[in-house]
Amino acid sequence: MDRFAVVKVSGAVFDLLDRGNEMVRGVAEQLRAARDLGWRVVAVTGGGNVARIYIRAARDLGASEAALDELGILITRANAELLIAALGNLAYPSVPRTLDELLAASASSRDIIVMGGLQPGQSTNAVAALAAESLGAEILVNATDVDGVYTEDPRRNPSATKLEAVRVDELMRILDGSGHRAGTYELLDHVSLRILERSRIPAVVTSYSRILDALRGERVGTRILY
Amino acid sequence: MDRFAVVKVSGAVFDLLDRGNEMVRGVAEQLRAARDLGWRVVAVTGGGNVARIYIRAARDLGASEAALDELGILITRANAELLIAALGNLAYPSVPRTLDELLAASASSRDIIVMGGLQPGQSTNAVAALAAESLGAEILVNATDVDGVYTEDPRRNPSATKLEAVRVDELMRILDGSGHRAGTYELLDHVSLRILERSRIPAVVTSYSRILDALRGERVGTRILY
Amino acid sequence: MDRFAVVKVSGAVFDLLDRGNEMVRGVAEQLRAARDLGWRVVAVTGGGNVARIYIRAARDLGASEAALDELGILITRANAELLIAALGNLAYPSVPRTLDELLAASASSRDIIVMGGLQPGQSTNAVAALAAESLGAEILVNATDVDGVYTEDPRRNPSATKLEAVRVDELMRILDGSGHRAGTYELLDHVSLRILERSRIPAVVTSYSRILDALRGERVGTRILY
Amino acid sequence: MDRFAVVKVSGAVFDLLDRGNEMVRGVAEQLRAARDLGWRVVAVTGGGNVARIYIRAARDLGASEAALDELGILITRANAELLIAALGNLAYPSVPRTLDELLAASASSRDIIVMGGLQPGQSTNAVAALAAESLGAEILVNATDVDGVYTEDPRRNPSATKLEAVRVDELMRILDGSGHRAGTYELLDHVSLRILERSRIPAVVTSYSRILDALRGERVGTRILY
Amino acid sequence: MDRFAVVKVSGAVFDLLDRGNEMVRGVAEQLRAARDLGWRVVAVTGGGNVARIYIRAARDLGASEAALDELGILITRANAELLIAALGNLAYPSVPRTLDELLAASASSRDIIVMGGLQPGQSTNAVAALAAESLGAEILVNATDVDGVYTEDPRRNPSATKLEAVRVDELMRILDGSGHRAGTYELLDHVSLRILERSRIPAVVTSYSRILDALRGERVGTRILY
Amino acid sequence: MDRFAVVKVSGAVFDLLDRGNEMVRGVAEQLRAARDLGWRVVAVTGGGNVARIYIRAARDLGASEAALDELGILITRANAELLIAALGNLAYPSVPRTLDELLAASASSRDIIVMGGLQPGQSTNAVAALAAESLGAEILVNATDVDGVYTEDPRRNPSATKLEAVRVDELMRILDGSGHRAGTYELLDHVSLRILERSRIPAVVTSYSRILDALRGERVGTRILY
Repeated sequence: MDRFAVVKVSGAVFDLLDRGNEMVRGVAEQLRAARDLGWRVVAVTGGGNVARIYIRAARDLGASEAALDELGILITRANAELLIAALGNLAYPSVPRTLDELLAASASSRDIIVMGGLQPGQSTNAVAALAAESLGAEILVNATDVDGVYTEDPRRNPSATKLEAVRVDELMRILDGSGHRAGTYELLDHVSLRILERSRIPAVVTSYSRILDALRGERVGTRILY
Repeated sequence: MDRFAVVKVSGAVFDLLDRGNEMVRGVAEQLRAARDLGWRVVAVTGGGNVARIYIRAARDLGASEAALDELGILITRANAELLIAALGNLAYPSVPRTLDELLAASASSRDIIVMGGLQPGQSTNAVAALAAESLGAEILVNATDVDGVYTEDPRRNPSATKLEAVRVDELMRILDGSGHRAGTYELLDHVSLRILERSRIPAVVTSYSRILDALRGERVGTRILY
Repeated sequence: MDRFAVVKVSGAVFDLLDRGNEMVRGVAEQLRAARDLGWRVVAVTGGGNVARIYIRAARDLGASEAALDELGILITRANAELLIAALGNLAYPSVPRTLDELLAASASSRDIIVMGGLQPGQSTNAVAALAAESLGAEILVNATDVDGVYTEDPRRNPSATKLEAVRVDELMRILDGSGHRAGTYELLDHVSLRILERSRIPAVVTSYSRILDALRGERVGTRILY
Repeated sequence: MDRFAVVKVSGAVFDLLDRGNEMVRGVAEQLRAARDLGWRVVAVTGGGNVARIYIRAARDLGASEAALDELGILITRANAELLIAALGNLAYPSVPRTLDELLAASASSRDIIVMGGLQPGQSTNAVAALAAESLGAEILVNATDVDGVYTEDPRRNPSATKLEAVRVDELMRILDGSGHRAGTYELLDHVSLRILERSRIPAVVTSYSRILDALRGERVGTRILY
Repeated sequence: MDRFAVVKVSGAVFDLLDRGNEMVRGVAEQLRAARDLGWRVVAVTGGGNVARIYIRAARDLGASEAALDELGILITRANAELLIAALGNLAYPSVPRTLDELLAASASSRDIIVMGGLQPGQSTNAVAALAAESLGAEILVNATDVDGVYTEDPRRNPSATKLEAVRVDELMRILDGSGHRAGTYELLDHVSLRILERSRIPAVVTSYSRILDALRGERVGTRILY
Repeated sequence: MDRFAVVKVSGAVFDLLDRGNEMVRGVAEQLRAARDLGWRVVAVTGGGNVARIYIRAARDLGASEAALDELGILITRANAELLIAALGNLAYPSVPRTLDELLAASASSRDIIVMGGLQPGQSTNAVAALAAESLGAEILVNATDVDGVYTEDPRRNPSATKLEAVRVDELMRILDGSGHRAGTYELLDHVSLRILERSRIPAVVTSYSRILDALRGERVGTRILY
């Protein structure tokens, strides 16, 4: 019986303008190692700073928010292609554009599948949650540029403390008030939490460098409780 | 310059098992009249009791929540076909399955466009909000089986009072705690409200019999304020 | 070398309104057992009473017969999703919508593939026959709510006798005069018989409870001779 | 209100190997004239001798009958491209591959739409009948290389007489026994007649040179009665 | 009779990182004005510096050249979305992904159509030439960051002189030796010139600021002769 | 690690009108043998004389060159179906229509994949080169009706001598002046050579009867050097 792990790879990994592609390589290496441990891996890539630049330009030109989402999705797919390149022949070579395509790919190949966003109105966090739900994944790892969930935004308040675990309703409260403009989806938005909650998918928020640790069962980041 | 109106038609209109298709006919008549008033109309159909029966059966058989969403979407599309039948040659004859197909249809025809759901994880309310956003609609009418938003669920508490208008954040608080299982999406869920909010789309919640009144500018149902 | 069996599952199995989903479960169990015997199984699901309710409503609203077929196809796909749910991880998770998608799925996965209708003007019996032809299936089992082909309709004439085998041209004569309105496709229509005939596909008509028996080679139902 | 005419153009018009493209030009001219008379025209092209050559070769190589149909459909689409070329900028420039695409094209453009076959198991006559049904066409003209329906095959029996009109059930009897191998579909097969019958679509069988006459309401060929 | 103009908009217009979106706005204004002059406009957008950054990163990660092309195409489509945003409701709201989709869009709407690349192995110059050929365009304007074709690369050799007109075979000689790595397609590559040549499409190479002038028939840039 | 071989099968193999299908069978046999040697085989089929007949007819009727390409692609796909028939159950049963579909097929099945053309403006030689590039193929065999590259066209000049190897730039010079009308693509056109060159794909031009020899590593035909 297959054990699926879904890994949401934050857009920050693809901040090409600032960091080049070293982080992409690092994530690829961890996913490869996870596969060697027997995991069937699906990765969902976020947008990063290129997405933000495009979205800002398009908003300034008068695009609708739904069109901005569409634009962001294109960039997340470009990021998916980068991760596929880094994975080489371990990656499924085509990027699924619907959940149905994801399911077909997962049924026909044991390669690591990489995808970006799917539809306007849905963050890549929500996509990752839906993918985990569809595949009956044993774990969703949300890999981001902080090492877990803090009581407050640690970049603004240095006294914020990291939580080892957090109840999903508590987490929603923390996120509330974060607004919802295209390209500014927060680390875990309401939709994705609702999806995780309705299917009680084991989920961990951690940093990109700890993906493999999380899949090895080490206690990293913040677990979400239901 | 085109004036678009998006009308979310609640699944209850398609409760074929209880009511036959009289309500479908009634909604079609109002949309036709709205078109005669110069509106370009896009209707989004919900699921109704057939959707609930299928979802219950599939959940009982062990389907994932995402698969249940997929199943619900199929039924909303069957409902869209019913409304198309009732509209006759005023309806665009094909049901868009993505926002992109909706945009292409709206650019190539002035017929009334009818669509159902799009993707798992997204209620038809969210679809309606995204459609309104994409098309730059002047109004979103959420036509349902209550005549507006009440301070509490009027079916449970008879002393609940109808609101003439409600702020979007207030509305979210009212909805909170409603859960989020496939097929039980409430009248206006968080995602759809976030979308309405981010684009400040004028929106009204009213009953199916007052769609035309709402499009004529009469003060019916409950307006959403931003 | 793969041995394909195509099983047409009559819509009556999906008469959710009358029977719940016990029969769906029963069919799934037999298909699973057939797979354990080494068969590669493709199932084609019919419409059932929900399809008939939708078709009646749409006809009453003035839909064309082709649109009624389209509506029926949506419901057969919803039924396919139910059977997929019941099969769990033995089922190919996506429903093919063209013969080409069926062929691609069959070439890329050994899961049980479940599909509904394909195109207006074609019954799901015809789809099953085309699937059998395309895959070079060794047998087509037409599983329905009677236990075989009778000299006359057994529900109308109690003295009708079951045939152990019937020549295809004889069978066409029996079917003649049955009319051809959407949603009322008879158990084996002309098109499907012509397809079976042109490719001489071994076929058996039997009841849902005997699918596995038929695939085990037992003498059940009525064989079609060429 | 639009008046649609569907014209089935027999494959013989595209017998390029024997006749070049003069007949294609002749048909195009008549369709153009029909359009000038106010008809909205949809043409469905058959296979012709190239289709037969391919089908014979593929059958000899061991293809399934369904694959032969698929091959025939490719050639009918090539023929559709020829007719589009002959119609120049009066033709819709893309060939619909599903009924749904036909409906979308017909709703978004007033050009002459040309299509070939759709799916294995369905002759282009059946496609033409479905198209007529979907569009609510006022007439279906079946343009072929004989000038109507004869009491017997006129190529075999010179004493066969042409019928001015024929009842659909009588016509089915005439066709019976014609077999049903891919690429040998007769002028009007069972499926297409059933579709015409279920929707009582006014239909005429006539020769390619009389398409325009038929659309002008002249008494040409053989009318089908219900 | 429609007069189509195809405008290739060089990727440099979308060098967001260096220039923001002022140039996008400027191009949009000219296209709008061209439309007011009666032109039916199709714009094809190039890649720009974001495309180059992605392609460099993916090449470094080991992607195949075909995959790099695919990545570049994604970014050209993101650029198309920017131009659509700038054109507002004068733009066709969906980006064609095949020539067939372009033709369908052009037959069903009079909006300005914007598209990016189509397929690996084909520059956006080639796409523009194919679009012009398919639509029977009266002119192809290749708008780039130099004001025409020079005897040599003017950025390297300041004594290069601009040509008022150039024969297509002469132009090919000038381009020869330019290499052909993904993302480095030169201003007019061999394929696009061959396409222009085979259909003798009137073509002009000029700067972005002179698009409208070229469409007004002014003598700007360099004409290509056949 | 998979070793991919891409085989371009010249259209002449499919000159059904002159030769029947013996050559198709011969090519199939060699591909089968190649598979037994451990190669993962992708075949790309050209057009042949049927393609030329269609293209001539359509050009005469006024089709655009891009439409002629489209027509040629349909015929190459019909040829692909023939080769699939000849390969029987060793062939992937569906013909990829995009590079992305090819990649998905290659990741999900080890069958021999057969495809025709992809898009206007691209010869099937270019498609073969792109396929080889995408898959990281170890060799591209261009199987045609001459046994290699000659100093001049051997059909015109009998004193032309066959080259054992040729540098890619030398080869381009030989091809120059060959024109570029749809359906007359020469044995190896500029685009395909540029693609081979940019990825330095080992390539051999040889006759259809030596495909297997080339894949066995024998010194047949003409090697292309970079």
